[in-house]
Amino acid sequence: MNTRQYDLIIIGAGPAGLTAAIYAGRALLNTLLLERTLPGGQLNETDYVENFPGFEEKIAGPQLMGQMKRQAERFGVKIEIAAVTAIAAEGESLSVTSDRGTYFTRTIIVATGTRPRELVAAGAAKFKGRGLSYCATCDGYFFRNKDVLEVGAGDAGLTAALFLSKLVKSVGIVVRHPQHDPNALRAAPLLRQRAEENPKVYFVWNKVITEVLGETHLKAVKLQDLATGKEEIMTTDGVFVNIGHIPATDFLRGTLALDESGYIITDDKLQTNIPGVFAAGDIRSWANRYAQAVVAASDGAVAAIEVEKYLANRR
Amino acid sequence: MNTRQYDLIIIGAGPAGLTAAIYAGRALLNTLLLERTLPGGQLNETDYVENFPGFEEKIAGPQLMGQMKRQAERFGVKIEIAAVTAIAAEGESLSVTSDRGTYFTRTIIVATGTRPRELVAAGAAKFKGRGLSYCATCDGYFFRNKDVLEVGAGDAGLTAALFLSKLVKSVGIVVRHPQHDPNALRAAPLLRQRAEENPKVYFVWNKVITEVLGETHLKAVKLQDLATGKEEIMTTDGVFVNIGHIPATDFLRGTLALDESGYIITDDKLQTNIPGVFAAGDIRSWANRYAQAVVAASDGAVAAIEVEKYLANRR
Repeated sequence: MNTRQYDLIIIGAGPAGLTAAIYAGRALLNTLLLERTLPGGQLNETDYVENFPGFEEKIAGPQLMGQMKRQAERFGVKIEIAAVTAIAAEGESLSVTSDRGTYFTRTIIVATGTRPRELVAAGAAKFKGRGLSYCATCDGYFFRNKDVLEVGAGDAGLTAALFLSKLVKSVGIVVRHPQHDPNALRAAPLLRQRAEENPKVYFVWNKVITEVLGETHLKAVKLQDLATGKEEIMTTDGVFVNIGHIPATDFLRGTLALDESGYIITDDKLQTNIPGVFAAGDIRSWANRYAQAVVAASDGAVAAIEVEKYLANRR
Repeated sequence: MNTRQYDLIIIGAGPAGLTAAIYAGRALLNTLLLERTLPGGQLNETDYVENFPGFEEKIAGPQLMGQMKRQAERFGVKIEIAAVTAIAAEGESLSVTSDRGTYFTRTIIVATGTRPRELVAAGAAKFKGRGLSYCATCDGYFFRNKDVLEVGAGDAGLTAALFLSKLVKSVGIVVRHPQHDPNALRAAPLLRQRAEENPKVYFVWNKVITEVLGETHLKAVKLQDLATGKEEIMTTDGVFVNIGHIPATDFLRGTLALDESGYIITDDKLQTNIPGVFAAGDIRSWANRYAQAVVAASDGAVAAIEVEKYLANRR
């Protein structure tokens, strides 16, 4: 049992958590950052980032996050590996329970992020970041004039396909229902119309990707026809998947107010329903709408500034 | 008269405008960025930045902004020097008028930012970034264990003084009214109470700074007593000024909906009252509440993503 009291505990070390740590460290808040595995968040699984402002040339995701981590440590923030299982509030005293023990603190920033719902197909994990992408905004530019497939028949999937259509040679939307099934496309009618009218977009009806194939880089997929059960190989330069995100908030159920999808509800100062507990980054549905590192980083800066103001009023 | 039509014209090349340009360029939008003077915004006048996430060591403001500019250019964004004097909408056709002519476009992102209201004192311009700062969050850390003065008796000034009190040895709030004048401090009573109770904070009543002194770096100020007119020299390590910001929106009056302080009003997708016209960065009062480069950059990314979606629905 650690009875020391922190000014701030940040949960999660992606761009939101690490930027919050940089700001808190420079404000000399006594800050602890807890991360379940490796600091870096989703960017640890990203080969290259081209759109994080300030980096003229592309930078490897893990390198960018390593720099952010050392930047936070330079200002005195302590980073520990611990899996948080619960937070609790008793009056103005907050606690964070983890597999490494319980910590006490005056404020908390939850920045545990989301993970994309993953394609269930053989080889999907191996080719992630090597031709298989969960973010068209981030990676579409790398597929200029290529042929790609899109998995996702909801708003996110069709929006990604339309975005990609400006960059790529062709984009085939793989739909796991037959063409005339009224539930085949869950996307808004306008998006469906735009996709149908777009000469670069086509549909692959009533099929699923069962395997992703290639050597070092994705080169083809195995498609199964759901009517006949037959499988075929289709060559492609890339596969984009947009079938939803899963917010990492299970450990907060019953404590923090969450929306119907499990995202944390905050006010415009990023404070949750518990005074002193803030949320930053993709764990907020507004930020996750964009799912961009710079948006999450901004949230982290804002949350840390609001934490500092909160504490200044209670000194 | 330039009759070419752009997909997007961005007005202003600070962190918001340049990040919008990076995202628009990678989405292959035909984008023009207009800047009145030198790309970079307020960071061009900032010696060093320590809190922009991803930069492990401090980086000179102009260097960071130069990198952002070249990053945008790498993705095909054209940057021109032009002073915009008006924007106009006729149906879905938008135009931007400048001292270099009129440009036509389908969408606009206004990212003209704000400038801090400046201290009116001899030498103030010379020592800006060299002991005279307009941002306690940004620069306070550089003044650890130093003696500083704060100009600003409103909420922003007292908030800055309380923030600084955690870092510095002492902070004197210079107030241009006598102590018992009921209008001396415009800040909220709670902030006044916190400042009065704080052992590191003291007040310098009924005085104004008439001159800032030093060689390469600020070392003292000349204070004038408003009751007697007498002047005295006071040594100090730094002066922080928080007397408001001025949004650069004069050219938009009568066109875009502005709030009572002149900031652009947007919805949560950063769209203004004119369809296709978006705003990003400190020109929005929410972002200016924080006045941080990473927050402005995030706004730029969000605005560009929303522009892309807006155009996809009208292709």
